[in-house]
Amino acid sequence: MIDMPSLVDQYCHGVLRTELGLGTFEAQLVRTEGPPAPGTTLFDTQTGFAVRRWCPPLLGLEPHCPPARYLARRRELGVAETARRLLRASGITTYLIDTGLPGDLTGTAELATAGAAEAHEIVRLEQLAQQVADTSGTVECFLANLAESVHGAAAHTVAFTSVAGVRDGTALAPEPPGPGEVRGAAARWLAARRVGDGPSDPVLLGHLLWIAVASGRPLQLHVGLGTPGGSRAQGADPGFLDGFVRATAGLGTDLVLLHGYPDHRHAAHLAGVHPHVYVDSGAALARTGARAATVLEEVLELAPFGKILFSSGAQGLPELHVVGARLFREALGRVLGAWVTEGAWSPKDAQRVAGMIASGNAGRVYGLD
Amino acid sequence: MIDMPSLVDQYCHGVLRTELGLGTFEAQLVRTEGPPAPGTTLFDTQTGFAVRRWCPPLLGLEPHCPPARYLARRRELGVAETARRLLRASGITTYLIDTGLPGDLTGTAELATAGAAEAHEIVRLEQLAQQVADTSGTVECFLANLAESVHGAAAHTVAFTSVAGVRDGTALAPEPPGPGEVRGAAARWLAARRVGDGPSDPVLLGHLLWIAVASGRPLQLHVGLGTPGGSRAQGADPGFLDGFVRATAGLGTDLVLLHGYPDHRHAAHLAGVHPHVYVDSGAALARTGARAATVLEEVLELAPFGKILFSSGAQGLPELHVVGARLFREALGRVLGAWVTEGAWSPKDAQRVAGMIASGNAGRVYGLD
Amino acid sequence: MIDMPSLVDQYCHGVLRTELGLGTFEAQLVRTEGPPAPGTTLFDTQTGFAVRRWCPPLLGLEPHCPPARYLARRRELGVAETARRLLRASGITTYLIDTGLPGDLTGTAELATAGAAEAHEIVRLEQLAQQVADTSGTVECFLANLAESVHGAAAHTVAFTSVAGVRDGTALAPEPPGPGEVRGAAARWLAARRVGDGPSDPVLLGHLLWIAVASGRPLQLHVGLGTPGGSRAQGADPGFLDGFVRATAGLGTDLVLLHGYPDHRHAAHLAGVHPHVYVDSGAALARTGARAATVLEEVLELAPFGKILFSSGAQGLPELHVVGARLFREALGRVLGAWVTEGAWSPKDAQRVAGMIASGNAGRVYGLD
Repeated sequence: MIDMPSLVDQYCHGVLRTELGLGTFEAQLVRTEGPPAPGTTLFDTQTGFAVRRWCPPLLGLEPHCPPARYLARRRELGVAETARRLLRASGITTYLIDTGLPGDLTGTAELATAGAAEAHEIVRLEQLAQQVADTSGTVECFLANLAESVHGAAAHTVAFTSVAGVRDGTALAPEPPGPGEVRGAAARWLAARRVGDGPSDPVLLGHLLWIAVASGRPLQLHVGLGTPGGSRAQGADPGFLDGFVRATAGLGTDLVLLHGYPDHRHAAHLAGVHPHVYVDSGAALARTGARAATVLEEVLELAPFGKILFSSGAQGLPELHVVGARLFREALGRVLGAWVTEGAWSPKDAQRVAGMIASGNAGRVYGLD
Repeated sequence: MIDMPSLVDQYCHGVLRTELGLGTFEAQLVRTEGPPAPGTTLFDTQTGFAVRRWCPPLLGLEPHCPPARYLARRRELGVAETARRLLRASGITTYLIDTGLPGDLTGTAELATAGAAEAHEIVRLEQLAQQVADTSGTVECFLANLAESVHGAAAHTVAFTSVAGVRDGTALAPEPPGPGEVRGAAARWLAARRVGDGPSDPVLLGHLLWIAVASGRPLQLHVGLGTPGGSRAQGADPGFLDGFVRATAGLGTDLVLLHGYPDHRHAAHLAGVHPHVYVDSGAALARTGARAATVLEEVLELAPFGKILFSSGAQGLPELHVVGARLFREALGRVLGAWVTEGAWSPKDAQRVAGMIASGNAGRVYGLD
Repeated sequence: MIDMPSLVDQYCHGVLRTELGLGTFEAQLVRTEGPPAPGTTLFDTQTGFAVRRWCPPLLGLEPHCPPARYLARRRELGVAETARRLLRASGITTYLIDTGLPGDLTGTAELATAGAAEAHEIVRLEQLAQQVADTSGTVECFLANLAESVHGAAAHTVAFTSVAGVRDGTALAPEPPGPGEVRGAAARWLAARRVGDGPSDPVLLGHLLWIAVASGRPLQLHVGLGTPGGSRAQGADPGFLDGFVRATAGLGTDLVLLHGYPDHRHAAHLAGVHPHVYVDSGAALARTGARAATVLEEVLELAPFGKILFSSGAQGLPELHVVGARLFREALGRVLGAWVTEGAWSPKDAQRVAGMIASGNAGRVYGLD
């Protein structure tokens, strides 16, 4: 009923370039700190079932075919051809890519080519700090280079993102840390770190967030349970987040709250109250599978329709881009379609809102085309 | 299937007496701290869509007609006639009105006449304290007048309400602040305040809450995200609330938890455990629009059916009374109707519970007729 | 559509051996700290309506018949015959029973006989500590007997459970309390307690949890609002729980999170991230009645299907075992059936997952034949 437009995926990663066996594939499906329950596999999750539903048909197999059969077909096609077929069938036409993850992942241009789509880079603040630290001699030098580096990146990146910065809520202090504090934290970190180490001190992470805010580019914050290693009790604590949101109001920089789940209703509320706050409605869907429509509906309760964005949150496997996008499109169509059928929304409004959430809002926030 | 009784709106405000343009109307629709996203309006929210669904037909227009057309019709009829038509079509026959808001709003008698309904006043504690402070010379005099004023108001008001008192959770201390503390806080406030300032010190707000509890009238507490300026991390913190609830058990005063969302399941739990706690099921519905039935169902999980009340939470626009009431009636009918169809509830029980939630519980709690 | 297997009830209590009148029956239905709202009864809750739906037909009456009629029929049959009929119709074939509650309740063997089912005992840590304290002369003696007692119980019990230990979140410290601390806490408790008193000191409760973890038997933790006397602000605080979960990873002992509601999505997340964490999906259903399918679906969002268990949480009344089991079976069948109909899941997967959640996972975790 609703004509679903193509998607801007406002937050994802590249895909692995290496061939995968059943075990290595499975390890990419779900973020977990150990093996699945005895007698089960990581396919026995909403994400696993969603992959088995949506992806086999795109490679010429039956939906829900056994994982081993799917992996065999994947190897038969080769990793590049698999990625090409899956990405092009996802419905995503623009990818914003956080390239700050380790591993043999495709970069921006390569993902664009594979997916016959546009792609833009998101700069991960922790990685930027690590690179600057790797090449800076003194504390003064590090801090000057860091500021310059963020400023320089702002000229070409569509957004900054921070993961560790939000994991420890204390980095979300409602004002920038003082110069002395920052110098002390930087000195301690530089003295202790080995090449390749990222920052973890809350003062330093807070400093990073605030220089990113000063750059004017949208800043994506990982909140909720989607953060690897994060816990709801820390970065996701609404208290920390509320203070930071209030403190950054009116500075001209948009904040985009990623993940959110299971506090997505709270994130949606913040997007409703604060002009500079936006909320993601996609990443949680790939993790909740058959429940995607309901999770999306919960975001649609308080978030104004001009403040909602889509992301797949995918990482490593093109299957996750597909699942994120397909679940989202199906959920959005189903939810808005039902509201039209009930008479709660008009067809025209539903169509307009679908376009805003699928791509219009992201185009505006990130200044695409 | 279920015969929906008329409603007691246990918490709302008056409506504006002035003619409104598109911009001034929109500003009343949604509580936000700044403009909507570029290219959108505050109509692009669940509340905005719900207003466009329910109100135009009551003024002779098509549902979902453009906001400008609706506003033109509104001006054509005039603000008084618009209010009359809307309020009389809401299904609300008794309004409990918090008259403590600034602005050119209709008072109790005026709203009753416009809506052809009964209306009773709720006294807002912060406003009472402000009025007493405006006319009291010394700290001793202020505190004596305050106690007398609350006691006096209890004789004619149906309930007390507190907004600021709950915004800062520390006011919800599990015991009344000591006399010395209160005197000190009052002295500091009286020395610093200008005429018209309301109290914000947690000790003073706590004192207000406790003298209201002592009065025996029901006390409405704004919890959750519905509080203007409130954050879930403060007053809505279930920890503060749990302590206050426990401390006020057995004193003979009912507590009514307003809003609640997104912690309405927790509020419903408190209503289930504590004999003196009641929970609102209405105000969140006007904000969540097409999702109203689900939000209502979540309250209906743990809250005993004799503990659930309705409010519109409306303020400024009669459209918000209509939307609150219509969404609630439709949601309640749909939810209970579905349970009857499934065989989970009997038709007779469903009808009885509908009556309790719509008006019976409120009649009992507030001693209406 | 889905063939629902028989259930392992991983957490419940025995049933009362005494005949019950309307008032005494009602008092067992719902855990509350006082009387229901005037003009209502404790039947006016989701649990009450669910009992009236499912139980009368099992005793030859119409569903939803008046409570007084149901109680009359119950007395006519006698308490033993009532229990026999109800339990055998529940669909539960294995009961794991926390025998640590006071009151004239059936024990393990007696419940097994009445229900024509298997039954195993769960040892409640607080009760064990109380029994050891009642018979130990000195602090050293008490601590040595306690360790021996837990170790001894581990040889025959299917699981340990802790209620008070989680009520005060500080007992969930991320490391075992030191020996000096424990000795001090034990000395204070032994000096102050009367025979029959259970432990409430967080250090002592933390010590109990950690010696149970060392035993290797699964440890059931009551989280969320299901704990009598518990509040979300304390034991249910996800922060405390996250720390304890992390600290016990890799020790070889499974943690089972009971209740969870309204934080069941968070509990499900922990089950998804940590190999040793399992989540209950049943006890909240008996309290939310007509909403059972949705609450179950929320658990099914993030929890891997091999990590979800069923319990009735029933206590005192066989009606609560019936309601827990019937609501669960119906909800599971309805939820998985709908996902199959939509094409989100395959019928074969749905059948396999139903078997895992109903009994397979519990069989594996608790080592049942």
